[in-house]
Amino acid sequence: MRLPKAIENLIEALERLPGIGPKSAARLGFYLLRVPESERQALGNSVLAVGKETQLCGRCYNVCEASGSESPLCSVCADEKRDRSMVCVVEDPLDLISFEKTGKYPGVYHVLHGVISPLEHVGPENLKIDELMNRLKTEPIKEVILALNPSLEGEATAMYLKKVISQKPGVGSIRITRLASGIPTGGDLEYADALTLTKALEGRQDF
Amino acid sequence: MRLPKAIENLIEALERLPGIGPKSAARLGFYLLRVPESERQALGNSVLAVGKETQLCGRCYNVCEASGSESPLCSVCADEKRDRSMVCVVEDPLDLISFEKTGKYPGVYHVLHGVISPLEHVGPENLKIDELMNRLKTEPIKEVILALNPSLEGEATAMYLKKVISQKPGVGSIRITRLASGIPTGGDLEYADALTLTKALEGRQDF
Repeated sequence: MRLPKAIENLIEALERLPGIGPKSAARLGFYLLRVPESERQALGNSVLAVGKETQLCGRCYNVCEASGSESPLCSVCADEKRDRSMVCVVEDPLDLISFEKTGKYPGVYHVLHGVISPLEHVGPENLKIDELMNRLKTEPIKEVILALNPSLEGEATAMYLKKVISQKPGVGSIRITRLASGIPTGGDLEYADALTLTKALEGRQDF
Repeated sequence: MRLPKAIENLIEALERLPGIGPKSAARLGFYLLRVPESERQALGNSVLAVGKETQLCGRCYNVCEASGSESPLCSVCADEKRDRSMVCVVEDPLDLISFEKTGKYPGVYHVLHGVISPLEHVGPENLKIDELMNRLKTEPIKEVILALNPSLEGEATAMYLKKVISQKPGVGSIRITRLASGIPTGGDLEYADALTLTKALEGRQDF
């Protein structure tokens, strides 16, 4: 008993998505077989279009609408009112959006498009790190906020960035900071893990 | 801060998939933005193709390769060696494949394409139930095995089918059976829930 080739292809393509195993891929594949043609077209066409209709910002590498220009600017970089002396380094555009949602960050960003991960064959050369170093030389940047995820890879990438930024000749006195680590708002001390609690204690501030 | 339209469309389409919430959809969307163009094409094209390149079997409603014919036969129905007096009624083609993998089922199938679920507005008229009743009249079927999932909806659908099959005039003496309910192979009695254990006890057999 073999599945029709078209379904096998679909299941195989779905399986490559992160977090989707063989069972979920099969279930999604048969689900897509059942939905109206219009829904398949919405999904299929948007997958095909997303690469063509978006571009990376020529300065911070955030995603933006494709404009045909060689190096377009995203809405943040194009905004004259943003503080260009402050760069927040994030892993991907989703993190940037989280910061923008706060409405409290006045500076600009730099999107690395990943973190250093030897297990997944991602080295510094696969990220937008050279591009960051170039910006540090050419733009009037005074502070770099390393806003990477508190994962093993995120921490390692932050350490690496701290080293290369502070050692780089030509890159003068740049303040390198990182996000505060502690109890999240609405969190419960009772349920906080030991490491979070330790960091919250170490990072305590005058009140 | 707004996302480019193409990404918004993609995330919206991904969100409609079962089991994928807004957060996963955003993560998958940005993942797809990062992969090589070829991978997006594989996924997008296979989603678009799956409806066109498959058809439902004209007899049991299993999926099969599109042949252009009005009512093609799937590989099971086309197999002359299958026992046509025994019909196994399943919810979807994936269940059929599970039975085929055992290699122990000699009969044919009937795929309902869903179960009765008032909450999701799926009534008997949305399933291949009329088609099953037609088969019972025209084919030499002696036994109907109701192999629906042991969920609330599956049980209700099985009850409904039992009622309509046994009441239907013109449908003679058909044996209606259901799958055995009990401890799965390799299962541990210690971890079995009370209902499973009760059913295993009730269904005990001479040894």
